[in-house]
Amino acid sequence: MTEPGPASDAVTVRRIDERAAYDAATRDAILDAAIIAHVGLVGTDSRPIVIPMAYARDDETLLLHGSQASRLLRSGKAGTDLCVTVTLLDGMVLARSTLHHSMNYRSVVVLGRAVPVEDLDERAAALDLLVEHLTPGQVAALRPSTEKELRSTLVLRLPLEEFSVKLREGGPVDDEEDLDPQIWAGVLPLRTEVGEAVPDEITAVGIPAHLAGWNRIR
Amino acid sequence: MTEPGPASDAVTVRRIDERAAYDAATRDAILDAAIIAHVGLVGTDSRPIVIPMAYARDDETLLLHGSQASRLLRSGKAGTDLCVTVTLLDGMVLARSTLHHSMNYRSVVVLGRAVPVEDLDERAAALDLLVEHLTPGQVAALRPSTEKELRSTLVLRLPLEEFSVKLREGGPVDDEEDLDPQIWAGVLPLRTEVGEAVPDEITAVGIPAHLAGWNRIR
Repeated sequence: MTEPGPASDAVTVRRIDERAAYDAATRDAILDAAIIAHVGLVGTDSRPIVIPMAYARDDETLLLHGSQASRLLRSGKAGTDLCVTVTLLDGMVLARSTLHHSMNYRSVVVLGRAVPVEDLDERAAALDLLVEHLTPGQVAALRPSTEKELRSTLVLRLPLEEFSVKLREGGPVDDEEDLDPQIWAGVLPLRTEVGEAVPDEITAVGIPAHLAGWNRIR
Repeated sequence: MTEPGPASDAVTVRRIDERAAYDAATRDAILDAAIIAHVGLVGTDSRPIVIPMAYARDDETLLLHGSQASRLLRSGKAGTDLCVTVTLLDGMVLARSTLHHSMNYRSVVVLGRAVPVEDLDERAAALDLLVEHLTPGQVAALRPSTEKELRSTLVLRLPLEEFSVKLREGGPVDDEEDLDPQIWAGVLPLRTEVGEAVPDEITAVGIPAHLAGWNRIR
């Protein structure tokens, strides 16, 4: 079986000290676990701009959401090239020399042109997916979006075609001459944790099960 | 006293439902607390590319680090415009309608042209700062970097001049007609936590105090 390769030169990972992947399963596991994306585009002044955004995966596409006011999404709406990068930070890698310090992470880079979701039913489904991506089970607790709300919302869809996955895992890789057992080297694992839920002043009920159990990020 | 304003039109925050800031203290608190940056630039094919990178703040500049092999830093070396975005995710904001779901976060966007740190002593100091940013106290436990190591490393310095801070905090903002106390709404706080340290196979000592106590991310 041939392993999947990169879709283009632009998404080919060149660094050899980290592992690259180009398969959908590795990509989707990262996209589904993370919370925010950093979306880059080339601004009207020809300079890059990178903005954190909510996203959700819908099969072989990525949904991006923001208000109509967002310059970023307006540009994307017009067919601008986007780069969507999603990164999970897994640990600090502490070595026995400064240069070999590193981080364990999993990262997906997607390139492409996003198209706006014009159909209102499709847009409603997309908004639901965006909320479900963050807090599964939450949409069932909410009233449906109104037509006015849907019209005021911009959702973009980006195909998951041109992408790469880059990751690092495991302990430090020290130079042979630095392997002194008296110097502590290893990994400090990092994870995102959910703290105690804070209800707003209106809420008169306990936290529902689908939110209380929400801790899927690793 | 006049509040600091944005340094350029490109970094002026236009969304009005979130708070913007342009002062150095707010900026630095975020830059010093976060771990990675997402660095954007315009590639040779005129498309945007966004890569996660290690960084550290050095007074009024930002240090960026990567191997000489990195396409991204090679471009930055040549004087390419960069956008460096650092985001801390503080919570999921759950509202009573799909559209008012949101996230609490603190984010800094820096625009500018980075210059390479050419002087080897300055580069050594920069590498130390990069390690100290991640794990304070760690550099004292390490041998100094060798000249060969320093020559093989690219460090860029970006002025913290053109920047903006954007943040959201607090609970959901629901529409008046949605304020049903029987629907749970509020915030699920998020924080990055350090798990149990994993020493490598060589290590024969306990974890030093400066690493055991490392948990500064909020």
